[in-house]
Amino acid sequence: MRYIDEEAIEKIALGAAVLGTGGGGDPYIGKLIAKEAIRKYGPVALISLEELRDNQIVVPISGMGAPSVTIEKIPSEIEFTAPLDKFEEVIGKKVDVVMPIEIGGINSLFPIIAAAKKGLPLLDADAMGRAFPEAQMVTFHLDGLESSPVTMSDEKGNVVVLYPRDGVWHERLARVITIEMGGSASVCDYGLLGKEVKSSAIPGTLTLAETIGGYLLDNKGKERQGINKMLEELNGYQLFEAKITDIERRLIGGFTRGKAIFEGIRNEQGRSFSIDFQNEHLVAKEAEHLLCSTPDLIAVLDAETGFPITTERMKYGARVVVVAFPCHSKWRTKKGIETVGPYYFGYDFEYQPVEELQKERV
Amino acid sequence: MRYIDEEAIEKIALGAAVLGTGGGGDPYIGKLIAKEAIRKYGPVALISLEELRDNQIVVPISGMGAPSVTIEKIPSEIEFTAPLDKFEEVIGKKVDVVMPIEIGGINSLFPIIAAAKKGLPLLDADAMGRAFPEAQMVTFHLDGLESSPVTMSDEKGNVVVLYPRDGVWHERLARVITIEMGGSASVCDYGLLGKEVKSSAIPGTLTLAETIGGYLLDNKGKERQGINKMLEELNGYQLFEAKITDIERRLIGGFTRGKAIFEGIRNEQGRSFSIDFQNEHLVAKEAEHLLCSTPDLIAVLDAETGFPITTERMKYGARVVVVAFPCHSKWRTKKGIETVGPYYFGYDFEYQPVEELQKERV
Repeated sequence: MRYIDEEAIEKIALGAAVLGTGGGGDPYIGKLIAKEAIRKYGPVALISLEELRDNQIVVPISGMGAPSVTIEKIPSEIEFTAPLDKFEEVIGKKVDVVMPIEIGGINSLFPIIAAAKKGLPLLDADAMGRAFPEAQMVTFHLDGLESSPVTMSDEKGNVVVLYPRDGVWHERLARVITIEMGGSASVCDYGLLGKEVKSSAIPGTLTLAETIGGYLLDNKGKERQGINKMLEELNGYQLFEAKITDIERRLIGGFTRGKAIFEGIRNEQGRSFSIDFQNEHLVAKEAEHLLCSTPDLIAVLDAETGFPITTERMKYGARVVVVAFPCHSKWRTKKGIETVGPYYFGYDFEYQPVEELQKERV
Repeated sequence: MRYIDEEAIEKIALGAAVLGTGGGGDPYIGKLIAKEAIRKYGPVALISLEELRDNQIVVPISGMGAPSVTIEKIPSEIEFTAPLDKFEEVIGKKVDVVMPIEIGGINSLFPIIAAAKKGLPLLDADAMGRAFPEAQMVTFHLDGLESSPVTMSDEKGNVVVLYPRDGVWHERLARVITIEMGGSASVCDYGLLGKEVKSSAIPGTLTLAETIGGYLLDNKGKERQGINKMLEELNGYQLFEAKITDIERRLIGGFTRGKAIFEGIRNEQGRSFSIDFQNEHLVAKEAEHLLCSTPDLIAVLDAETGFPITTERMKYGARVVVVAFPCHSKWRTKKGIETVGPYYFGYDFEYQPVEELQKERV
């Protein structure tokens, strides 16, 4: 057990934006609110999966919606704890531990804020090891755990509780409510017992975000060193170095969907690349040649600072380094690929691990 | 207190389709299920508003959605009580009395089915004195009573509980959930105490539906007598007698919206009429001349049998008698007209009571 301080929040925000594969909401707004929360309510205790007791009630809290919306519709105070309060009311018990459902953008920081306000410990684990756009894209779903009851709230004071028949209906109902609430909502789902979380969550991911955030922060100005240390830590690859020449971004069905087009620079002069995204980066290509696809991780980094750029903040003309990392092995199982592989997102090619694609490339 | 038998159900279904202003769901499917329910579970006790005790918990149950959908997506057994069961769970108390939220189509019969299954008495009152398309269009809303918690369910086993901040958010959130559930859902809202219901509900409306349904049924074949007795009972008017020459019906935003065009027959030969509807009939006109508008009631009756034809079952070529009735005085207050008057539905004319419009006509 250790405490999260403002420096840790700064690093987690950076690292989570890398692991979040460009998504998980905006980390820049999230870190300001998280720092303010620990100043106001006191430090947050971070506990490991091993420290978690079997009978403790663990509840993930996160923001749902399109990053394009969350960047402008800044969460209000009540949103950070209203779904937790309702969850306690519904189950008739107090929540013992809060956790992030995903590592990415604001969703790594959201539970820090909730934990600070509620005076609860935070679990150093999540249910994706990255960020994904839909509610059922969690290891808990792969392991057959129930998401119900799902509690949701907005900044206007509306609260909704879902008892969906399965993970797909959870996503469908929560998505239309999020859209109607104005494009973003705060959510508690997969409230579980400690023993269930231990068997299914991906351990140590907040610490991992902090570690790689630290590499990037400590090597600011000497950016390649930070990126290189990160690639080493995560067994990653540099996919390309390029300039954004076109970006198309639309709000469809409650998601930010789009495509970025890149023109190679430095060693990659004359080559062209693309990334498709749905809240998170999904597929990176060189012309028609696949470089990396979901569920492996793709991150776009500022070529100068080495800092991650979310899907929402990618801009025409930006010079970037695009990197990729292998996803957690849970996503490479049959059910994992069915849930988050290229077919699920409408592509007609099979998933190939980024390591294999990189071998082919050399 | 008296018991509802199969004959009463037959009459209520007919009368409610008149009072329902063409809406409230399909009564023909509803009456079959209601008769089956009392055969299976036993008779349902109907109690008056005076018999209700102040501390009893009264919960309305109804179907929400577009009639075009409910006519094909026949409600399944679980839908009739799932929202009631969840309501009891949420408030931690047993429901004492069930009531219809509106008088119209299936929604007058729905609570009979729920009452039979749960072994509960049914209240002879509703919160509209007719049917309206949106959730906040109830006397309970006019009287400032809370709709929360709202429980909803579908035939797939999904259950949702809403705690909306007000009546408008209740409608917005419940509507998108209904659409996502497939276009229809069953709902409990405005669960209230007996004393609150006494101060706000419109009394005796199931009995009224049964009475006028009886007139129509007993005078089948001698249709004008049934219609005339009904007009007398409800202080109503015959607007016109005509043939449907065109009908336009679309599913928009979870409602059935459309327009019917009529050509006068018999005494009205050579004249043309129209009715606009949104689940329920909203506005009847002769050419550009207003004959009757919401919140007053409009009913389309088969010219041969005198039986009501719902908005959903109006067909090209049908010969009909169109009648109108004054709405309950609660709808003619300032807040009533704001909530359900012509402006609310997007028209740019002021509400005029049907009596005045008829005086002008003579």
